Amino acid sequence: MTVGDPRDVLALKRDGRRLAPEDLAAFVTGFARGEIPDYQAAAFLMAAYIRGLDTSETLALTRAMVESGRTVALAGVSRPTVDKHSTGGVADGVTLAFAPLAASLGLAVAKLSGRGLGHTGGTLDKLESIPGLRTDLSPEELVRQVERVGCAVAAQTHDIVPADGALYALRDATATVPSIPLIAASVMSKKLAVETELILLDVKAGSGAFMKTPEDARTLAETCTTLAADWGRSCRAAVTDMSQPLGQAIGNALDVAEAVSLLSGGSHGRLRDLSVLFAGEALSRLTGAGMGEGRSAAAASMDSGKGLEAFRHMVEAQGGDPRVVDDPWAVLPVAPVRRPIEADRAGHLAAVDAEALGRASTDLGAGRKKKGDPIDPAVGIVFRPKIGDRLEAGEEIGTIHARDEAAARECVPRVLSALTMSSTQVEPPPLVHGWFGG
Amino acid sequence: MTVGDPRDVLALKRDGRRLAPEDLAAFVTGFARGEIPDYQAAAFLMAAYIRGLDTSETLALTRAMVESGRTVALAGVSRPTVDKHSTGGVADGVTLAFAPLAASLGLAVAKLSGRGLGHTGGTLDKLESIPGLRTDLSPEELVRQVERVGCAVAAQTHDIVPADGALYALRDATATVPSIPLIAASVMSKKLAVETELILLDVKAGSGAFMKTPEDARTLAETCTTLAADWGRSCRAAVTDMSQPLGQAIGNALDVAEAVSLLSGGSHGRLRDLSVLFAGEALSRLTGAGMGEGRSAAAASMDSGKGLEAFRHMVEAQGGDPRVVDDPWAVLPVAPVRRPIEADRAGHLAAVDAEALGRASTDLGAGRKKKGDPIDPAVGIVFRPKIGDRLEAGEEIGTIHARDEAAARECVPRVLSALTMSSTQVEPPPLVHGWFGG
Repeated sequence: MTVGDPRDVLALKRDGRRLAPEDLAAFVTGFARGEIPDYQAAAFLMAAYIRGLDTSETLALTRAMVESGRTVALAGVSRPTVDKHSTGGVADGVTLAFAPLAASLGLAVAKLSGRGLGHTGGTLDKLESIPGLRTDLSPEELVRQVERVGCAVAAQTHDIVPADGALYALRDATATVPSIPLIAASVMSKKLAVETELILLDVKAGSGAFMKTPEDARTLAETCTTLAADWGRSCRAAVTDMSQPLGQAIGNALDVAEAVSLLSGGSHGRLRDLSVLFAGEALSRLTGAGMGEGRSAAAASMDSGKGLEAFRHMVEAQGGDPRVVDDPWAVLPVAPVRRPIEADRAGHLAAVDAEALGRASTDLGAGRKKKGDPIDPAVGIVFRPKIGDRLEAGEEIGTIHARDEAAARECVPRVLSALTMSSTQVEPPPLVHGWFGG
Repeated sequence: MTVGDPRDVLALKRDGRRLAPEDLAAFVTGFARGEIPDYQAAAFLMAAYIRGLDTSETLALTRAMVESGRTVALAGVSRPTVDKHSTGGVADGVTLAFAPLAASLGLAVAKLSGRGLGHTGGTLDKLESIPGLRTDLSPEELVRQVERVGCAVAAQTHDIVPADGALYALRDATATVPSIPLIAASVMSKKLAVETELILLDVKAGSGAFMKTPEDARTLAETCTTLAADWGRSCRAAVTDMSQPLGQAIGNALDVAEAVSLLSGGSHGRLRDLSVLFAGEALSRLTGAGMGEGRSAAAASMDSGKGLEAFRHMVEAQGGDPRVVDDPWAVLPVAPVRRPIEADRAGHLAAVDAEALGRASTDLGAGRKKKGDPIDPAVGIVFRPKIGDRLEAGEEIGTIHARDEAAARECVPRVLSALTMSSTQVEPPPLVHGWFGG
């Protein structure tokens, strides 16, 4: 479609026909260059949403998106390289722990990250709650830091997959966000633009995730890993539980403090388990170590404080105050108001509306309702119980960290109404629903 | 949706759900006012194309379109009022004959018309080939002329259904034109905005029409008449044959000359039959005359020259040179080159690609490829045979009227290749496939 009418592409997809890869690529490239107007791209997105895109179409879309910008080569990095991405969850601090943990195991983590939006937090926002820390590394700075420290988390620059930002804004405006091929192309284009040896995906499923069911999450995981395979890249995707907050901290500085505690070996639970699982998977895939061996090494790195040291080096390399690893709350911003959350009845915790908790934290100021909104790094929610726990009426189950009393007061009932209690015992949900890709 | 997010409307239609009339109306009104951007409207059009719109949704869309502008009241007109619209065909000069014919029968025809586009001609363009004739009547001028002369054909002004122009441009750009509910809303909004007592629709079916099959045309006719009934207006729609050019003239001045000949009682055939049928239908519906009586009166008006006199009055009232009715080619622009078309083989004419003939005429300069293109009133094609006719090799079957020799030479093989010949006898297609509405 070097010469051609974009309406021919629209008519084919409108009628549920398969697009030739070169036609789809020409359409997306034309859009990225500003030659195809928003309204034609919007009509395409709606047709693609309703009719779907098959494997080869999704690959062509992804390729055109990657080729809309520059890519980051990691040939200069001597360690085995890995990138890790979560599709977004609540109290999902895995990346904060995973990056230094993998670095402490001799791997190199090169991660470009986005900011939080809606009810899910963003790794960039969390890291930036550390005074002085900057995430605006150039690709060259990123590569140098990865080689020297073993890990770096930087903001995605505008010249990497520029088509994604433009397409995402249109999807957001046209009710075409929750389409698995469009999500997969968006996620994977940004991963494929950074040339790591391994891509790890954490595809969240449940009340706090975009994919509400493990089945949908599985389809997304398979679509992403197929895309990577067709591209010639190694990618492993886990579908993991987001039917409740993964860790305890739903905020920014709060998440950093939780990560420090985790990397000090002082926390146990699902956040630690998943961090160890991903670090173990990376070690095993990249060095040929056995799976059990990889996980043991990751756990040991956490308990010995080696992971924490790597975190210190990363923070320092990015200009942040390294004392955050010794005494987080001496360094991190503290919310002026703390209000305890007490269970309003006794019972077994049966379900948590994790998205509602994420939204409550956003409304405290910890997140963004729309792109570009400012956030307050100090505020958020600490929520401790997990599904299956027995709670007593009046038991303290967490803390609201708020800017003022009114906000804290308003938040408590929102947290409580997100909980479903049962009079009988409840089985905790599995942490991992399955692994995909190779 | 006075308060509301247009994305909710998009999400519902995306998922194939029925929209509440007020939500759909708010969306379209928001678009017409420039509050809803092109890209959201484009996504809506694609979703509506794929998922469809039901009767109540189509009515809500049509109502919002009508209410985007002003309407034309005809309360001041003492005669029974009628409007007549064709969905577009090739050599379709019915309106040119119908308007004066109905006027000569004591009715009043108030017609706002659009310009030709693509392979189909437009009544405005045809009339404007008469020197001096203007079509930019204000609604007030239109009403005055209708009362005084009995008929007027004027250009649709920008303040009548302004949403239609904007939506049509988007549909054209987004491959969402051929949707029956969207077509029906576009056609009917312009008819409902002019408050005639009766609306007559000529829904064309066949190779020269937008609806290629009588079945599709029937669906469109039913959608349009249901819309009118739901609105409380009287509407009759005929599905008529467009598997070949209706008359002989495919151009502008050529069509006027053919209309003059027809109104002089000098022509017989399908164009005359259909003009008489529509005028008879109007008379019968508006005066209670029997159907046969109405048609006889229309035919008599044609043969007596009363219709031609009404045409003279209309031309004169709109500033055109009235001598066109006495000696058309003394007044109308004449193409410099005329080249005969001769049949290249003998046989029975079995099929005609009428759209191809329309396009060939457009390429001579008689039509527009896109809105706003200039047209040449003098050029076009006269094509005489009808399906079922026996032709001899070398027999003259028509004439190319062209700007230059090269254009005429190039046109001949295009006309000939639009014809399918048969060695055996061929039955002519029916002229009318059916009537709808009440």
